[in-house]
Amino acid sequence: MTSTATSGTTSPEPRGPRSPGRPRSERAEKAIIEATLELLGEHGYAALAIEAIAAKAGVGKTTIYRRWPNKEELVLDALAATSVPLGELPGTSLRDDLIACVEYVRRSRGSRSTRLFPLMMLEGLNNPRLRERYETVVLEPRREVLRGVLRRGIEAGELPPDFDVDLGVALIVGPILYLTKVWNVPDDQLPDDVAARIVDSVLDGIRARR
Amino acid sequence: MTSTATSGTTSPEPRGPRSPGRPRSERAEKAIIEATLELLGEHGYAALAIEAIAAKAGVGKTTIYRRWPNKEELVLDALAATSVPLGELPGTSLRDDLIACVEYVRRSRGSRSTRLFPLMMLEGLNNPRLRERYETVVLEPRREVLRGVLRRGIEAGELPPDFDVDLGVALIVGPILYLTKVWNVPDDQLPDDVAARIVDSVLDGIRARR
Repeated sequence: MTSTATSGTTSPEPRGPRSPGRPRSERAEKAIIEATLELLGEHGYAALAIEAIAAKAGVGKTTIYRRWPNKEELVLDALAATSVPLGELPGTSLRDDLIACVEYVRRSRGSRSTRLFPLMMLEGLNNPRLRERYETVVLEPRREVLRGVLRRGIEAGELPPDFDVDLGVALIVGPILYLTKVWNVPDDQLPDDVAARIVDSVLDGIRARR
Repeated sequence: MTSTATSGTTSPEPRGPRSPGRPRSERAEKAIIEATLELLGEHGYAALAIEAIAAKAGVGKTTIYRRWPNKEELVLDALAATSVPLGELPGTSLRDDLIACVEYVRRSRGSRSTRLFPLMMLEGLNNPRLRERYETVVLEPRREVLRGVLRRGIEAGELPPDFDVDLGVALIVGPILYLTKVWNVPDDQLPDDVAARIVDSVLDGIRARR
């Protein structure tokens, strides 16, 4: 996504890649992202205006357009930036890594990115392009981590060679998303070992079919 | 939900229960529900006004308040009424009934009720009461059908006596909801036997643990 940072700029100054040596620019970026998420949550996507974001972040519109070509890319970047970090996978076994992925979804239930998910789903009904970009920029990178875990399971012989990785993703994250987001079960009412039970259900099923 | 139909009425006329012998009243009800769903999709929940619904449906506000005490109950009733009917379960086996439940979720992806789901999730973030009522009136009755299937599986000895029915619901419907709603995989790109594969994954897992 940083590839879009310098495209579509309206500024005449040449800009190099972002570097940690530019604290003021980073502070501005944080403020812009913060303002974007706040206004998005308050007013929705359609009513979100770059002008209002600039005012709330205390920057000029040019500062925003220097980094993001349009509202869509700014919103997607903001949502991606605010996601709960997945963290290191334990790497000790297929089971442990899958449990870590489920725990990640469980942990992220209250995050702002997760709270804004229904808003993006809703917007996406009338704006398929936004939906697709949201998929690519925000959801797909996380899904790819889980796909990697499953592919390593196939390579290690823990999953059959013809294992359907995409269906596997759905079997692993679908149940925890359903419990936490659709059903809205409070975290303390979920079984402590819910992640292990979901993962074991999938792995036991595979073992039974061999 | 029909129990709310006569409560909170502002009309002085006494009303009996709804009966099939009142075609005009039924036409009005259909028009009101239709107008509610249309305006809800266009303007969201907060901006939805009983006045606008009445105008669109071609009825007086009193006609609406005669049936529904407030906007919340009207919206919930409308969403419940527009859900794709679950239909008869085959009743031939636990597996067949579970597959029918998954196929139901798959089939309902394009329904208006399903399309309005993210809107209700979003509203629910700021309106926990609405979220809870939505849960009770719209989601829970469908979930209860699936719970019934699983309970019959326990009684028939096809599932272990300590089977966690609620986790079972999540394992069965979570993956298909994830594929169709979150991931947004087009129906023709799902495996034809996706319902059977989800159900078999769960049932095989249970068999393996016995």
